[in-house]
Amino acid sequence: MTHLQTRKEGDEGISNVEFCTRSDETRRNRRLQSFVDCYGVEKPSLSTFEQTKRYTKKKCSSVTFECCINILLKRIPLFRCLKTYNLRKDLFGDIIAGITVAIMHIPQGMAYGTLTTLPPVYGLYVSFFPVIIYMIFGTSPHLSLGTFAIISLMTAQAIDSVSFEPSNIVTQNGTIANLTGSSSVDIKLHAATTLALLVGLIQLSLSFLRLGFLTVYLTEPFISGFTTGAATHVFTSQIPSAFGIRSPRGINGAFKLPRIYVKLIQSIFSHINWISTAIAAVSIVTLYIAKYLNDRYKSKIRIVLPLELVLIVIGTTVSHFLQLHSKYAVAVVGQIKRGLPAPSLPSFDHTDKLLVPAITIAAVSLSISISMAKMLSRKHTYKVSSNQELLAYGMANTVSSFFQCYPSAGSLSRSAVQEGSGGRTLLVGGFSSLVLGCVLVALTPLFQSLPMACLAAIIIVNLKGLFLQLKDFMLYFRISKLECILWTITFVTVVLFDVDIGLYVGLSTSFFINTVRTQRPRFFVLGQVDNTGIYKSTTNFPSVQQYPGIKILRFDESLYACNAPFFKRKFYELIGMETTEEPIVSCRRPETFDTKTDVLLKYIILECSPFNYIDTVGAKLLIQIFNDLKKRGIQLYLTECRYEVRHTLDIMKFYEKTELHTIYVTTHDAVMTAVAALNQIPTTNN
Amino acid sequence: MTHLQTRKEGDEGISNVEFCTRSDETRRNRRLQSFVDCYGVEKPSLSTFEQTKRYTKKKCSSVTFECCINILLKRIPLFRCLKTYNLRKDLFGDIIAGITVAIMHIPQGMAYGTLTTLPPVYGLYVSFFPVIIYMIFGTSPHLSLGTFAIISLMTAQAIDSVSFEPSNIVTQNGTIANLTGSSSVDIKLHAATTLALLVGLIQLSLSFLRLGFLTVYLTEPFISGFTTGAATHVFTSQIPSAFGIRSPRGINGAFKLPRIYVKLIQSIFSHINWISTAIAAVSIVTLYIAKYLNDRYKSKIRIVLPLELVLIVIGTTVSHFLQLHSKYAVAVVGQIKRGLPAPSLPSFDHTDKLLVPAITIAAVSLSISISMAKMLSRKHTYKVSSNQELLAYGMANTVSSFFQCYPSAGSLSRSAVQEGSGGRTLLVGGFSSLVLGCVLVALTPLFQSLPMACLAAIIIVNLKGLFLQLKDFMLYFRISKLECILWTITFVTVVLFDVDIGLYVGLSTSFFINTVRTQRPRFFVLGQVDNTGIYKSTTNFPSVQQYPGIKILRFDESLYACNAPFFKRKFYELIGMETTEEPIVSCRRPETFDTKTDVLLKYIILECSPFNYIDTVGAKLLIQIFNDLKKRGIQLYLTECRYEVRHTLDIMKFYEKTELHTIYVTTHDAVMTAVAALNQIPTTNN
Repeated sequence: MTHLQTRKEGDEGISNVEFCTRSDETRRNRRLQSFVDCYGVEKPSLSTFEQTKRYTKKKCSSVTFECCINILLKRIPLFRCLKTYNLRKDLFGDIIAGITVAIMHIPQGMAYGTLTTLPPVYGLYVSFFPVIIYMIFGTSPHLSLGTFAIISLMTAQAIDSVSFEPSNIVTQNGTIANLTGSSSVDIKLHAATTLALLVGLIQLSLSFLRLGFLTVYLTEPFISGFTTGAATHVFTSQIPSAFGIRSPRGINGAFKLPRIYVKLIQSIFSHINWISTAIAAVSIVTLYIAKYLNDRYKSKIRIVLPLELVLIVIGTTVSHFLQLHSKYAVAVVGQIKRGLPAPSLPSFDHTDKLLVPAITIAAVSLSISISMAKMLSRKHTYKVSSNQELLAYGMANTVSSFFQCYPSAGSLSRSAVQEGSGGRTLLVGGFSSLVLGCVLVALTPLFQSLPMACLAAIIIVNLKGLFLQLKDFMLYFRISKLECILWTITFVTVVLFDVDIGLYVGLSTSFFINTVRTQRPRFFVLGQVDNTGIYKSTTNFPSVQQYPGIKILRFDESLYACNAPFFKRKFYELIGMETTEEPIVSCRRPETFDTKTDVLLKYIILECSPFNYIDTVGAKLLIQIFNDLKKRGIQLYLTECRYEVRHTLDIMKFYEKTELHTIYVTTHDAVMTAVAALNQIPTTNN
Repeated sequence: MTHLQTRKEGDEGISNVEFCTRSDETRRNRRLQSFVDCYGVEKPSLSTFEQTKRYTKKKCSSVTFECCINILLKRIPLFRCLKTYNLRKDLFGDIIAGITVAIMHIPQGMAYGTLTTLPPVYGLYVSFFPVIIYMIFGTSPHLSLGTFAIISLMTAQAIDSVSFEPSNIVTQNGTIANLTGSSSVDIKLHAATTLALLVGLIQLSLSFLRLGFLTVYLTEPFISGFTTGAATHVFTSQIPSAFGIRSPRGINGAFKLPRIYVKLIQSIFSHINWISTAIAAVSIVTLYIAKYLNDRYKSKIRIVLPLELVLIVIGTTVSHFLQLHSKYAVAVVGQIKRGLPAPSLPSFDHTDKLLVPAITIAAVSLSISISMAKMLSRKHTYKVSSNQELLAYGMANTVSSFFQCYPSAGSLSRSAVQEGSGGRTLLVGGFSSLVLGCVLVALTPLFQSLPMACLAAIIIVNLKGLFLQLKDFMLYFRISKLECILWTITFVTVVLFDVDIGLYVGLSTSFFINTVRTQRPRFFVLGQVDNTGIYKSTTNFPSVQQYPGIKILRFDESLYACNAPFFKRKFYELIGMETTEEPIVSCRRPETFDTKTDVLLKYIILECSPFNYIDTVGAKLLIQIFNDLKKRGIQLYLTECRYEVRHTLDIMKFYEKTELHTIYVTTHDAVMTAVAALNQIPTTNN
């Protein structure tokens, strides 16, 4: 008792003397079971079936006709938009934004259309139909659906694998060269629309299953690494168009990109078209400078100049009057179909082969679109629901697959413009589609002489934003090593292998990292701060006091299978019971540490506040440690166990296998109990 | 002030009156910054490079010649075993156990040898060489390395894929039927030894990189589901031998097993060999009954009967004298090479094709072996080091690959016998190998007439233990739903697809589950228990008291990217600021809840004790919420933040973006500060 009384009295802490002199009954009250008996409620232990029944009953009873109508209308946000539409405030901004975005859609649609290896007009269809559908079902007035570089590239890979099948090649008069003909386009188009339908159906089913929450696993470092990696593929795909050479085909497998570059460089040396190269170079430089100037003086001129459209107009005019295609063999866009496509059922020929690419494209498109929508919603403080967005993307892809569209996604650059040019409601999409419809019906033949090099230039300049994400590496490197590793692994896998492999490896890595993070948590010895009820680690707070014969430990992570071996090893190490094997050859090892075993360890208190859950392995380990310590004459107390943890311990029969009074409400209670018990055996106390 | 004074005085808690009358200085001390200034230490912020340098320096300074020798000797546990060997106590048990296990090795080696589609003698080699190597490097005296059903099956699949290559088939006189000849065995043998070498090298490199800790990810439910699933494949592979039919080949892809069964049943109807079937049936039934009786009366007879060896002897004798092979076309073992194989370098022909199977086999073999070694070590309380075990398996596979061995692993049945028959030290392996060496040198020709059906019977009966693991499903179903899901997914994938796909899907699932577990944690409103400093959830402890104007919350999981959206939604829901959209059609929804907003919410206290870490997304969210609440005139306090969390908040400039005094040491401090502040504004208090 002397030892305790000499310690100075804390300001707010419970006085030790006071506590120790209290009756046993009070102290026992702080043992968890008594505490729960006194203050807690026993949860009614309903079976899962019973719970479901009650839930259904409750839900069903509150269903009225109006509610149903409301739920239905809630799925079509356009109604709310129309209901609250303010003609005076919203209309002007919406029209301006709609026209501006439509002007961006034209060059981008054609450029990304060629990226899919289909004729450019199909890109324009994708700029038209999904936008209308998104207007009806979408929630973000700023997100611009339509063509997107990475999705277009993935579509190209998917339809390539189908159209290059032996069975298809054989039907084309036996020669592969003939595949550039119109029937090859048909095969590709069928594959592309099937792909869009599959992507749409996958997204719709995700929405109906209310699995929108799954998008939280697509974390920022993952998406950043993934899109940056994919940008390199998009860039590579534009090199042939820029240099006027043929794109290498049939290169797959590991280290695809380096091998493609070898082929590309060979091709450039032998078949370069200098005129194409010059057009591309001039276009890129002018576009880049113009964009830079536009960004810089945006605040002064207050409008977004349609630079890309200007480039296209100039490029087409020059190409047409200098007859670049016929005289200098510069690749041009060529004949473009006029008018809107008639609705037709997508084919189901290659569903089996297209399913896996469709899953990948669905995942990529929704992850990019939703993360963009959420970013915009944070800026403008409106609510974006993952499930509703999934429904919108799903409907957009499904419906537009009947109109010869390939898969669509939200585009970062267009969304930024849609937001910046003053779009306020979902109707922006309607105005944009109106303009595009006019272009499709009347103006497409004008683009016939447009050089492909111009389109390549537009894509390459637009990649700038994605490549700027390389800076994220440095950001994550500084902030969090694990997030940096995730970024790097995703990026490297996408670059060295392929977009789809990168997606799956990146996702697995992100789950793995969540596991790894719990592997080597800190395991502290705690001590009392002055005379209060606060216990802090001896490492961070060296002035804390430890009681002789008592060790207070805290393991800063939930205890479960994956870190249980580490817990066990470290636990015994911290209480000085490491089972060190003696050296085989005698060795003069310098003894640097001095074992303070002047007082026998009698009590170990494990603060369980960091345990958010505990699994069967963890519970078994605690029982095992409890019994092992008991054999050595040491009592283990657990403190501050959460409900979840107590529940698992209960299922694992922890209370039957150990003593009932092992769990205390707070660490301080357990310490005070231990101190009181130690004082009854004066020999152990100094 | 009146409100607080009416509350009844707690037994041990800090009295509110007392607290509020205390000077401001005391209270401020409990703000975290002052607390850290007063008691804590600033960690020296060393760069990673500096830390590594110091660590290396420290390590290097303590290296002496004796230490090096000790480390080297530590890697060869046989030395320690020999040093402490007690001839009188250990020798007899070791010899008996060695002979018993060797007697088990003979039938199992031959049976599993045929399972790899190689001649049975190669199984005997695997029962011989790896055992010797494990004796030198292993740590468990009870683990019996050698042939193992699942590894043998996976070896069969790997070498099948190589030996069935067109290039190999063409060299065999153009006919596939010729492949059963000796040159086909050569190709398979080359592939098998290459595989063993690769597996060994992979395991060795894991050991050198000290990656033994990775085995913790192979959790119990995963291993149980995996091995049970693999057992169905092993069972299926034995049906042809049992019925005397040819095994179906070249079936791969999804739903492999059902398709194999269709083929098998067709084969059985057309080509069944009734004598084989009878032999198999009789063998299985006798063996099963004999094993059952042996298990039951083990305690009385106190020896393990070599039932399988007896079966083999009887089978061989009957087959030889009735001339079953020549007269009834019963498949028999046939010519067996006599003597030990001469060492030869494994070929490196198909390294590229065998690498992926080798990784899978390495992972499966080490996971099964280590989990078995750990199970045995728990029973006999000796220490098994993962890295040392990896070294032992790696050396065993690498060295024995030079002696025509295929990959080995620990066997559950033999290990149980090795333990049960009294083996005490690593020398058991030596005695077992001695017996097997004699058999290989002298007795192999005797097994020539052994029917394959007998070997199939031995394998099938030995699968009993693995199939009994089906009960684990019920166990996990009762204890933990997530572990049950992991078991089921692993089992189903292995059964429906294949062993390797199941391995990867199961592993991914287990990581995914670790992530999912943190997705929807409980989010509690806390209240004060009587008048103490203890705060408990209002759900589990309904008698707790809440202060008007103050809300105390606790989110029972670390806050990071994957659960940040859930946190945000739930947080605003709990403080009653849910952004509910009004219905589009007016609807008579029954207002069931009554919003108690008679007192304005002024303080929100978030107890951060469950946050074991927080990532950038989580930190950003906290800053965002802090600023959002400030706009609404609400103050957010964080309490009980761990060092890790404070560190991340610091990096994310939390203190610069919020006010300095946001973090309190304990929840009680924050509550008392808030109460005191509220009392200074009497209007908000009733």
